[in-house]
Amino acid sequence: MNGTAPRRRGRGRPSREDTGTGPSARQRILDAARAEFAERGYDKTSVRGIAKAAGVDAALVHHYFGTKDEVFAAAIEVSFEPALVLPAVLAGDREGIGERLARTFIGVWENPGTRAPLLAVIRSALTHEAAAGVLRTFVLRRLLSRVVEELDVPDPAFRAELAASQMVGIAILRYVIKAEPLASADPEEIIAQVAPTLQRYLTGTDPHSGAEADG
Amino acid sequence: MNGTAPRRRGRGRPSREDTGTGPSARQRILDAARAEFAERGYDKTSVRGIAKAAGVDAALVHHYFGTKDEVFAAAIEVSFEPALVLPAVLAGDREGIGERLARTFIGVWENPGTRAPLLAVIRSALTHEAAAGVLRTFVLRRLLSRVVEELDVPDPAFRAELAASQMVGIAILRYVIKAEPLASADPEEIIAQVAPTLQRYLTGTDPHSGAEADG
Repeated sequence: MNGTAPRRRGRGRPSREDTGTGPSARQRILDAARAEFAERGYDKTSVRGIAKAAGVDAALVHHYFGTKDEVFAAAIEVSFEPALVLPAVLAGDREGIGERLARTFIGVWENPGTRAPLLAVIRSALTHEAAAGVLRTFVLRRLLSRVVEELDVPDPAFRAELAASQMVGIAILRYVIKAEPLASADPEEIIAQVAPTLQRYLTGTDPHSGAEADG
Repeated sequence: MNGTAPRRRGRGRPSREDTGTGPSARQRILDAARAEFAERGYDKTSVRGIAKAAGVDAALVHHYFGTKDEVFAAAIEVSFEPALVLPAVLAGDREGIGERLARTFIGVWENPGTRAPLLAVIRSALTHEAAAGVLRTFVLRRLLSRVVEELDVPDPAFRAELAASQMVGIAILRYVIKAEPLASADPEEIIAQVAPTLQRYLTGTDPHSGAEADG
């Protein structure tokens, strides 16, 4: 930046790819970050460790993502990519929202490739206040804003979080605690039960007990 | 046991109380175990550390509880003591089960004294397979068997776990992640929303999609 070469540690000059001209260095950093956070947990993961695992300089990690919290947020966002389908899920016919959401959610968790990074995120967020803060600030807010945009109901954020709570609870009992018989239940049985819950939370008449809608 | 004094480390002869003649040494061990598991996590907690914190000999911990897993299970059970009200919650009028359960559950979590140890248990179980196994084997099975005894419905265990999943999800989003607006919502609003969900899971016509009850 000031005309002299930036200090580099641990590696020689970065290759052309590492200088950030292509998407692959960024992607390698994200993949490495996910793996590091999953394996070591939030506290023990460092930007330098992520850079090393990605085969890039730590400065490049900072260049792309900023602080460790921001790398974590970006790694989390990758894990939540399945949530990019949310607008499509919410935009279809209103009566089917609960079932489409339940089916999408269970589908993501039944896929080991998407389950593993989500588990890592949940574990980090549940054990480290900093990670919980990142999840709250960067991820939930964006996801919720999408729901709020799509759903024309009073209290959309409260409704969305009630729906999220049901899905998070299923994920934890079925995939983390592995409580039987839920852990071995046919996914269709779970969808059939959870869909009406999500439907009511998202489109039911009023989330407030006895109160008029957004009065 | 063989006529010689057992080896003791770290402390001199135990006092009369420490030899286990009264309930208070046992209680001190449980309190210390809860604190140690909460503070250090499952992996870093040892029977010796618990004994030291309780001011007793490690042999006494083994005498009362056995292995570390068994101490953890006992410590967990203390945390789940509020669940001892379950039979009363389930035994009342059938139409009010969902609301009574939601109210009891939220009441336990709104009380900081009962929330803290529950949080510690959940965090341990979510991050350590051994702790999850203990929760699954010792605690959930017993809680579920109580529900199964009280509820005369098909698939009572599956129903109970669906209800538990909703409550666990609320606990995590509201008290751990602290996602807004759920974290600041009036408990009554949450009870009003969650009660019908629990009611349907526990007493709805059939937990299986389209299938006849316990056919």
